[in-house]
Amino acid sequence: MKRKVYVQGTRPDIRVPFAEVELSGGNPPVRLYDTSGPLNDPPAGLPAMRAPWIAERGCPENQPRTQLHYARRGIVTPEMEFVAIREGVDAALVRDEIAAGRAILPNNVNHPESEPMIIGSRFLVKVNANIGTSAVTSGVEEEVAKLTWATKWGADTVMDLSTGKHIHATREAIIRNSPVPIGTVPLYQALEKVDGDPVKLSWEVYRDTIVEQAEQGVDYMTVHAGVLLRYVPMTAERVTGIVSRGGSIMAAWCLAHHEENFLYTNFAELCAIFARYDVSFSLGDGLRPGSIADANDQAQLAELRTLGELTRIAWDHDVQVMIEGPGHVPMHKIKENVDLQREWCHEAPFYTLGPLTTDVAPAYDHITSAIGAAMIAMYGTAMLCYVTPKEHLGLPDRDDVKAGVIAYKIAAHAADLAKGHPGAQEWDDALSKARFEFRWEDQFNLAMDPDTARSYHDETLPAAPAKTAHFCSMCGPKFCSMRISHEIGLRQKSREFIESGAQLYS
Amino acid sequence: MKRKVYVQGTRPDIRVPFAEVELSGGNPPVRLYDTSGPLNDPPAGLPAMRAPWIAERGCPENQPRTQLHYARRGIVTPEMEFVAIREGVDAALVRDEIAAGRAILPNNVNHPESEPMIIGSRFLVKVNANIGTSAVTSGVEEEVAKLTWATKWGADTVMDLSTGKHIHATREAIIRNSPVPIGTVPLYQALEKVDGDPVKLSWEVYRDTIVEQAEQGVDYMTVHAGVLLRYVPMTAERVTGIVSRGGSIMAAWCLAHHEENFLYTNFAELCAIFARYDVSFSLGDGLRPGSIADANDQAQLAELRTLGELTRIAWDHDVQVMIEGPGHVPMHKIKENVDLQREWCHEAPFYTLGPLTTDVAPAYDHITSAIGAAMIAMYGTAMLCYVTPKEHLGLPDRDDVKAGVIAYKIAAHAADLAKGHPGAQEWDDALSKARFEFRWEDQFNLAMDPDTARSYHDETLPAAPAKTAHFCSMCGPKFCSMRISHEIGLRQKSREFIESGAQLYS
Repeated sequence: MKRKVYVQGTRPDIRVPFAEVELSGGNPPVRLYDTSGPLNDPPAGLPAMRAPWIAERGCPENQPRTQLHYARRGIVTPEMEFVAIREGVDAALVRDEIAAGRAILPNNVNHPESEPMIIGSRFLVKVNANIGTSAVTSGVEEEVAKLTWATKWGADTVMDLSTGKHIHATREAIIRNSPVPIGTVPLYQALEKVDGDPVKLSWEVYRDTIVEQAEQGVDYMTVHAGVLLRYVPMTAERVTGIVSRGGSIMAAWCLAHHEENFLYTNFAELCAIFARYDVSFSLGDGLRPGSIADANDQAQLAELRTLGELTRIAWDHDVQVMIEGPGHVPMHKIKENVDLQREWCHEAPFYTLGPLTTDVAPAYDHITSAIGAAMIAMYGTAMLCYVTPKEHLGLPDRDDVKAGVIAYKIAAHAADLAKGHPGAQEWDDALSKARFEFRWEDQFNLAMDPDTARSYHDETLPAAPAKTAHFCSMCGPKFCSMRISHEIGLRQKSREFIESGAQLYS
Repeated sequence: MKRKVYVQGTRPDIRVPFAEVELSGGNPPVRLYDTSGPLNDPPAGLPAMRAPWIAERGCPENQPRTQLHYARRGIVTPEMEFVAIREGVDAALVRDEIAAGRAILPNNVNHPESEPMIIGSRFLVKVNANIGTSAVTSGVEEEVAKLTWATKWGADTVMDLSTGKHIHATREAIIRNSPVPIGTVPLYQALEKVDGDPVKLSWEVYRDTIVEQAEQGVDYMTVHAGVLLRYVPMTAERVTGIVSRGGSIMAAWCLAHHEENFLYTNFAELCAIFARYDVSFSLGDGLRPGSIADANDQAQLAELRTLGELTRIAWDHDVQVMIEGPGHVPMHKIKENVDLQREWCHEAPFYTLGPLTTDVAPAYDHITSAIGAAMIAMYGTAMLCYVTPKEHLGLPDRDDVKAGVIAYKIAAHAADLAKGHPGAQEWDDALSKARFEFRWEDQFNLAMDPDTARSYHDETLPAAPAKTAHFCSMCGPKFCSMRISHEIGLRQKSREFIESGAQLYS
């Protein structure tokens, strides 16, 4: 059985959730990181857990209220302590990584319902799930259901990428029901306000949108401030041009006005707004490659350098920053992305979309990109934005959201193992031990997706006795290697052989 | 539309199949590697295409009839020419790589229905699909259907891992209908002959089984000759013991008899049989790790050294060899596997099962392992044995076979791109160009799985006009970055901007 347990911190209102899997046969229970939150059903808003912590810090006029601000002053906030317990690390490490800009703790003061989490290469690799309405399909309730569904399967943050009608109402419903940080791309709502015409956009419309969203509690915002006018022509001869929605919108604006990107020219004012709410920057890669042919090109790398410049400015305002990355990248060009990002962006956390390692498999881009995601995370990327099977084809539904989250949780955990994250392998070892000992129910309960593992086993051997049998339908009883390992008394016989001097009778 | 075309070689009976995708808008057609064969429906046996080539070479008494034998004598066989056309490389390269032992062309003289293919790190990465009955489930017709289904989706070889009843008849039906090389693990049938008791196995029973299968036309056989008695105790303290069926059977035999593995002690005689039929060795990794905890351990590496020793002996008999590899390996330990295999096994081609990069996601092991497979192929593995979603849980059905093959074709192609295989990227470029130009039908036809790509698009925008629309339901019309790229006249405007001196009006 899997159940939710809480670990208390230094004060009674720091209660950190874990999913505890009870095991049979006297094996100790395994505690897993848990993103599912209080799971209200039906969704009716979550408790404002962080409200006292935020209130205690007060609301000083024109003072930054960011976790970076406190970390730099040596303060371990309740949020940082929560994260330390969650990650199984020292609170000082959390504070120091935030202070150095190598990690962010995205928690808008107006989203007190959120359970603190951290994004940084020294911590568990995180996964973001994109949801949101488009003009063509989907509604508010459906999106809240996707949010709950995504966090149930392990999404660490959720981006609401709604476009079309009811953007404000959709976002309000999502934030009030979200135990995880919520990200947005404010440009989408700004564009709706000017009837969808990029040319009519202005700094004023954008700024008002930012304030509106920050007031609601958005925890991080993608800002395409690195799409500079002079970089746009670098994309002209690409196979797939500009594939970031925000990037294409800002490029259209820049070219139409022959003016520099207003997000770049007004960046300091943006920082001042973000600092008041503790909104984190997710500096958007508006010129990311959308095909293997365009990977690591001049446009992409020019923008990355500018994102590094903007990182410094944000840090000067005590604002937390992460950097978005590609996209479509063949495997041999993945490491360069991480290396350049780390160098040019001063070790700010990297947050990548995939990358997809080939263009040829639409309908399977959760897999083409899980390959790239696992690798880029192994090299140090802190958060992975999922890709669903519907990528390039349509808006993801509930099944797609689950498929995307699971593929990315696999990529993230594989990277945690490769990075030697303390404790990561305990999960694998517990499951493999259960497998070797034919504790089928334990194996299912420890699986990333117990429901599907159990139902696959049921398909060919549905009877209850099969759940204790020492074989499965894959090999049948006679050819089960694990059964044979046990029956020959592998351990005992091997010891006897060694004790006898390991001689052959031949 | 996709249709089968043939390219003729230097003689009229060398006709190499390709899948040609016709594109709209004046774009040139794209030719893709094609494994589907003549596609008889219902299956009634395939034409013996290679029969004249084999007959022409004659049947000299006690002379090897292997491709390695001919390659070493500087001969380019029709099979080699076929492969060269198929891979788009020079026939001399094919011959030289086979002669050096760095590639194999697995084609039993008694399987003349097969279309030649090559397995080696200088060529396209190949994918094997396992099928076969188990004692608990499945029948002959179902397995032939799985064979056809697997090659339709791109399986380059198929292993018939049948156990239980009707092994001979199942294999006969599979070989006679297979356009791709068929591999087996003869130990499974040998075990059936001794009532499933590993202790009763003998060299004689095994040898007779080998001859029976070679006569039928099996192209490569997994032989667990590296499971030496003294290595077995090295597995005793593992988390998951011995997880190879063949490995566990041979370990049981060795421990019961306190004798050395009879496959090892009779290896030269095995080679002599293989040489007569041109059966290739797939030297089995009977001690491969079955969990993250056991990866790259002493038992695994000890066996690998022995496989290198056996490779030399096989080569002395002009017998072709590939080496099987793991299994379960965390990402940071993958490269070591390839490096040691290459060194210890003298650059014989490597053929790995996955590897799975984590143990925690049963029901998704096609994904956990596609990550490892893509990486290990990038490092030089020549063929990847697929893993289906049912791994560890049950016998794969038709859907699982497809899911496994597609995940592995993705991994293989991603590796081809990363290795810079000539021509590999043309496929990606053609698809991405179609995507950017909203040629939806071209995009579907170029997709690895056109059916699923089309049906996903249909789910939200089923009407025919949507197949020419300049957007999809993912972003809707206003937020389609590619549409915006076109509407702003990205190329034209960018050129004007540069010609005007790239000045800002500010």
